[in-house]
Amino acid sequence: MMRARADAPYLVAARGGRPSRRPVWILRQAGRYLPEYRAMRARHTFLQLCNDAEAAAEVTLQPVRRFGLDAAILFTDLLIPVPPMGIDLDFDPAPVLARTVRSRADVAALRVPDPERDLRPMLDTARHVRAALPQDVALLGFVGAPFTMACYLIEGRGSKQWDLTRRLLHAEPATFDALLDRITEALVPLVTALVRAGCDGVQVFDSWASVLSAHDYARRCAPHTERLLAAARAAGALAIDYVNGAAQHVEAMSRSCAEVLAVDWRRDLGWFRERIPSPKALQGNLDPTLLFADEATLRAAVRAICAAAGPDRHIFNLGHGILPDVDPRAVEIVVDEARRT
Amino acid sequence: MMRARADAPYLVAARGGRPSRRPVWILRQAGRYLPEYRAMRARHTFLQLCNDAEAAAEVTLQPVRRFGLDAAILFTDLLIPVPPMGIDLDFDPAPVLARTVRSRADVAALRVPDPERDLRPMLDTARHVRAALPQDVALLGFVGAPFTMACYLIEGRGSKQWDLTRRLLHAEPATFDALLDRITEALVPLVTALVRAGCDGVQVFDSWASVLSAHDYARRCAPHTERLLAAARAAGALAIDYVNGAAQHVEAMSRSCAEVLAVDWRRDLGWFRERIPSPKALQGNLDPTLLFADEATLRAAVRAICAAAGPDRHIFNLGHGILPDVDPRAVEIVVDEARRT
Repeated sequence: MMRARADAPYLVAARGGRPSRRPVWILRQAGRYLPEYRAMRARHTFLQLCNDAEAAAEVTLQPVRRFGLDAAILFTDLLIPVPPMGIDLDFDPAPVLARTVRSRADVAALRVPDPERDLRPMLDTARHVRAALPQDVALLGFVGAPFTMACYLIEGRGSKQWDLTRRLLHAEPATFDALLDRITEALVPLVTALVRAGCDGVQVFDSWASVLSAHDYARRCAPHTERLLAAARAAGALAIDYVNGAAQHVEAMSRSCAEVLAVDWRRDLGWFRERIPSPKALQGNLDPTLLFADEATLRAAVRAICAAAGPDRHIFNLGHGILPDVDPRAVEIVVDEARRT
Repeated sequence: MMRARADAPYLVAARGGRPSRRPVWILRQAGRYLPEYRAMRARHTFLQLCNDAEAAAEVTLQPVRRFGLDAAILFTDLLIPVPPMGIDLDFDPAPVLARTVRSRADVAALRVPDPERDLRPMLDTARHVRAALPQDVALLGFVGAPFTMACYLIEGRGSKQWDLTRRLLHAEPATFDALLDRITEALVPLVTALVRAGCDGVQVFDSWASVLSAHDYARRCAPHTERLLAAARAAGALAIDYVNGAAQHVEAMSRSCAEVLAVDWRRDLGWFRERIPSPKALQGNLDPTLLFADEATLRAAVRAICAAAGPDRHIFNLGHGILPDVDPRAVEIVVDEARRT
């Protein structure tokens, strides 16, 4: 099976080295801000796109072609494994689950998907993309961190501070821990399958960890995330640990087996550099709303991140997903500036 | 005008001393978890309650009487000053503004309320409560921090990460700064009036600062908050700076003129104690969802906070507002445990 070449900028930086150019990719780079994506979405619902391997591969490749990015990330969603776990899912456009998981019986009823049978479109997407991708571009798969998956399973839809999830963590600790354990069991085979299907790295997204105390995250959530990261490494890929709220969880992240720690915008990159020992690489961390700023402000913000990071073991990215009404020109500016510095 | 006595536990702790007992109050202590509050709400809408000084005073006093708390906080809402600033407001139950503020013209159209004319019910509530309150109980008024007020004015309703607000901060910096300046101008007279009406302290709530980078908060938002805190002090009251996301903003908070820094649950209290120099007092910081845990877990969590704080300059509280379906018995446990340790 094909892989990116060992000297691909993403891989060099991720492994702690100095790449030939600073690698750049953009969280949620395949999305509504791109006219070519909107053209695809005019013919498919979001779920149809995720479940049609050829269409998903095309959408995955669009931003890589347009901007010359250093990583492709599979077009899919954290919640795609939820239906084969036994819970129907819809997007309105935010995700809505057909039922919630709040009791031991609910947890026990969750199934462990067989990736090649139940998540075939995601794996086929990986194979299609890998075949089409230049070998100096890394292919990344991703899964949700067990905590973030639990947020959706417990609450059934988005929430500001995930109070019901934190409530279950404290009030029904055995149920909460069993749920995270079950989610982890369900996702480990997917992580392995993604690597077998050609992914050079797997990013684990803890999109909502910012609502957790450092203590609860380190003790109750990070160990489950760690099993997913370890599965990626065991399968021969890079492990990338994305935590939204990384500053408050920096101690736990520093202890992770992940080669790359991907961080949000709340603290500047220099702050993370001071606290996270070599050879871990950092990925991030522009505030996505800076893409609406004027060009001089945007370039200065990118430059500040790159200067704080230095030339080694840094992958430029946003600190959270790109927003739908960004002008693609802003991404061009970001890529250009990140590669100059 | 009456005030709490200088040896009231809240005042002693807030001024950096060792109180006769550890003071306790509860964020959003007058609320739906109390049957006596629900009985009042059966006869008034939320806005009617805020605007009826006698009813609001009764609701303010309910939790103080029931639990023997060391502070009463006026029953009102951050957004009550918004209609006299010129924008209609409704609660469905979350706040919805009749229009948003996104341009220089929108900002210029915002009026500065005259508190005694336009916010009379809030000030009358303070006078009623002060007259009824034991003198060892402090009376707190509150206002929204300019950033948090701006979130609602810009977006018109709640949001997970306030992307439009951060977008305006970066893309239209002059408009954003003018808006925060205008909000501050509008609230300074209210802070002063609250103190004149009998408040011993004014808490400034930055409920959504957790979405800001440390840099943007320190440079663009904290200076406005500071003017409100300084106004409270200038009027002769305590200034209390509540920031949700306090850990990421701990440097800016440490530089504040506030006597009391009120912190959320994301880092434990010992972490804040190490970073915030004496004589500042700390208020907090139990995760509100811990009130759903079993009694032993809840007591252990309260004990851990009190042990980390030590006996001086600590006011026990939650790290964010109490949730509507808490059993009032959990608050009794919290108060009992906080006073034992």
